Amino acid sequence: MILSPEQVSTFFKAHWTVRKYKNFKMPVEHLDVILEAAQRAPTDATAQMYSFVRLTDPVLRKQIADLSTNPHIETASESFIICADVFRLEQILKTYDFEPASIPNIAIHFGIGDAVLAGQSMLIAAEMLGYRGCWIGGLINAPNEISELIQLPEGCFPFAALTIGVPDEEPVHRPRLPRNQVVHENTYRKPSAEELKIGAEQMASITARGNWAQTLARYFAKGGGMEAREVKMKEFLQKMIYRGK
Amino acid sequence: MILSPEQVSTFFKAHWTVRKYKNFKMPVEHLDVILEAAQRAPTDATAQMYSFVRLTDPVLRKQIADLSTNPHIETASESFIICADVFRLEQILKTYDFEPASIPNIAIHFGIGDAVLAGQSMLIAAEMLGYRGCWIGGLINAPNEISELIQLPEGCFPFAALTIGVPDEEPVHRPRLPRNQVVHENTYRKPSAEELKIGAEQMASITARGNWAQTLARYFAKGGGMEAREVKMKEFLQKMIYRGK
Repeated sequence: MILSPEQVSTFFKAHWTVRKYKNFKMPVEHLDVILEAAQRAPTDATAQMYSFVRLTDPVLRKQIADLSTNPHIETASESFIICADVFRLEQILKTYDFEPASIPNIAIHFGIGDAVLAGQSMLIAAEMLGYRGCWIGGLINAPNEISELIQLPEGCFPFAALTIGVPDEEPVHRPRLPRNQVVHENTYRKPSAEELKIGAEQMASITARGNWAQTLARYFAKGGGMEAREVKMKEFLQKMIYRGK
Repeated sequence: MILSPEQVSTFFKAHWTVRKYKNFKMPVEHLDVILEAAQRAPTDATAQMYSFVRLTDPVLRKQIADLSTNPHIETASESFIICADVFRLEQILKTYDFEPASIPNIAIHFGIGDAVLAGQSMLIAAEMLGYRGCWIGGLINAPNEISELIQLPEGCFPFAALTIGVPDEEPVHRPRLPRNQVVHENTYRKPSAEELKIGAEQMASITARGNWAQTLARYFAKGGGMEAREVKMKEFLQKMIYRGK
């Protein structure tokens, strides 16, 4: 299958993130194809340092929906926890009498990388079939509790959740930053204050109050919501990935 | 555009990683579409914590090809450094008089996530157009040197490189682990030693000597190549992301 630039453009332009789904059971042949797409994704050294935990138990779905404050984890056709995972890799090494190295920064680097490569391939496969989905960063609100619920072993941590289903809401177009602030040529070009303001204005329509910097600040500035999560995540990674090293 | 399960399956099955490219200049309308696909990718809070550095300077391409030991960075139609980036986000906050929080673990988590979401969308768009590509983890051999060459600011680091072009080699089918070792239901299921051996045998064909565990061990076991890289990456992240915090 080779598509024209217009077809590819139309396909990616039609991407939108959905948080309200119809009650719809995904046919098993669709589930099979999106998981196949995930598994065909490239991974570092083909080491496949990721795992998916598919959530089918309604009680578990509700618990994780509550912990991550994303109700659509309960209602989507399919809900997954997308994990970085060096546990299995370490088990393979041990099975063949090799001692795993202590490489926590590498594990996080390629673990997240592999998990997202597989997850994004799965989402795009689902979008090709006509579904829509949502990546959920909110697992960082409760990494410990969620990892215990799905019984993740050391060496494994939940990067994000991913829901897929049939939309029960209308598409909304969300803008992006100007390309010349995101794509650089040969060397990183720092945008001027003027350009940053143009970018922030271009993004304003995704915010309730029309002030993108303020929205970002609520998460990423001093006193914002990410500071408490940083503490939680540091402790959590210390336990699951650094393991005292 | 809605595709059948068979079409989606055929598309993803046809994915293969290419390291030898024909001398071919990508038409500007193709480049435009693959960058559009990258920018349409979802990112955490639509904060777009990534940057691409497109390599067009032949001297720079050669330097980075050598540093990462991936010669196809020189010869591909397009070569990119795919970066995690909170520098721009911090600049936006500062421009609007907010003080950025110190959240290095969050920056790495969502920075890598956003970078890979955008990069994998770009690669899949290129594959839809008939190109093939290669994600390159080898930047971790020389993160300092590469970041200096492309002048990355603090808050930004190179996750991987990505080459795209027209293959000048034959497709090779690379196997994957059995699905039931990668996709779990509700709780993480630890594979038995027997299953791990079946998985390793299934992966054996990607290795020169038919022993996957040994190949993995050369990277990921005590004494393997990742240990030195771990030290380098830790120092590098300390400087660029943790910044003494």
